[in-house]
Amino acid sequence: MTSESVPTDDNLPEAHQSIMRATYRALCNHGFAEMTMQDIADEADKSTAVLHYHYDTKENLLVEFLAYMLTRLDEQIAEMEGASATERLQCLFRRLSPDEGDADREQFYRALLELRAQAPYREAYREQLRANKASIQQMVADIVRNGIETGEFRPVDPEQTARLVLAALDGARGAAIALGDEEDPRAVREGLNEFVLDSLRRENGENGENGESGDDTEVEE
Amino acid sequence: MTSESVPTDDNLPEAHQSIMRATYRALCNHGFAEMTMQDIADEADKSTAVLHYHYDTKENLLVEFLAYMLTRLDEQIAEMEGASATERLQCLFRRLSPDEGDADREQFYRALLELRAQAPYREAYREQLRANKASIQQMVADIVRNGIETGEFRPVDPEQTARLVLAALDGARGAAIALGDEEDPRAVREGLNEFVLDSLRRENGENGENGESGDDTEVEE
Repeated sequence: MTSESVPTDDNLPEAHQSIMRATYRALCNHGFAEMTMQDIADEADKSTAVLHYHYDTKENLLVEFLAYMLTRLDEQIAEMEGASATERLQCLFRRLSPDEGDADREQFYRALLELRAQAPYREAYREQLRANKASIQQMVADIVRNGIETGEFRPVDPEQTARLVLAALDGARGAAIALGDEEDPRAVREGLNEFVLDSLRRENGENGENGESGDDTEVEE
Repeated sequence: MTSESVPTDDNLPEAHQSIMRATYRALCNHGFAEMTMQDIADEADKSTAVLHYHYDTKENLLVEFLAYMLTRLDEQIAEMEGASATERLQCLFRRLSPDEGDADREQFYRALLELRAQAPYREAYREQLRANKASIQQMVADIVRNGIETGEFRPVDPEQTARLVLAALDGARGAAIALGDEEDPRAVREGLNEFVLDSLRRENGENGENGESGDDTEVEE
């Protein structure tokens, strides 16, 4: 398997999913720099030979893992199909911000931050991270575009809006993980509600003054 | 010298400034992981003994360097004293976004990204990066607060606004440096103009429809 082919449920279902879940746990427990193929094999209860057979190198396995994470987010957003554009954006704000006090998830994001810092030097990581970003950007732009079409949002540039939203969520995650600034994710979600959602909903009968768009606890999971 | 004392022009003026400039060049040329005290000494045309005398360890020297960068930004913003809050925010947007096609600056930001990825594991880096962030956040909040006081901006939470602005600029810089997505910094600056500045200036006679707030080429350096 090459790093280009993202496995679907049809080809490698159980083995792939169990190795991907094992990779998540291994990243949480060992971090990016220290994690070995043996650590993943141990978590998956498989041999390293099996891992190398399916993914060849650790780099390839991690590229597949990044693709797998994207698929998971796609599924979560697809579940919101019937909701309003506002609700779908707020759901996405929460999915892309770390929950405070979840130590496992924090460990995982630390590992991801390290992997990302290697992206300028490692083309395979860079390409997959770019693909993930482009795909998530598309998701956000599609929600905004849909909101404009239904009259929920005023006309804006959906791509530019998506870039702003994702940059803010990304920056907040970085501050929380790298600097331990745990206030940032919530403050930035509230800021996105106050400035972006409020602005999107203006000139369409709903001007956000009813307290709705400033309250990010609406779409609690 | 300890990592707590930020040298001013009064104590270590020339030696400190020349070593800080040498550190910048060494980070550009060697990256964070590979850069040695010898590399900095070579750039500064000094011995490593002098470096160790002034800063003790490489870690301490890099902490001083992070403090030095903050002082530089402070000076640049202080130069904008007479400008409107809008102009000062737009100037800050540009200062905190990498210029496209500046290879040196890009190399430098790559090194900074690596240092930041080590922050969860290295307290000294984390503490100084937190201090830098808090200080820049204060700068932005002060500009917003000032804009509210003079009636240029509508009343908002200055701290929350500052967190949103900085997270977005940070995320855009990360995408540009880690993933090579060079469109992000400009798109995010325009998004901040479109959503944040436009919103701040609403309900104060200026609603941003005159093209001013949507044009980030105004404050060209």
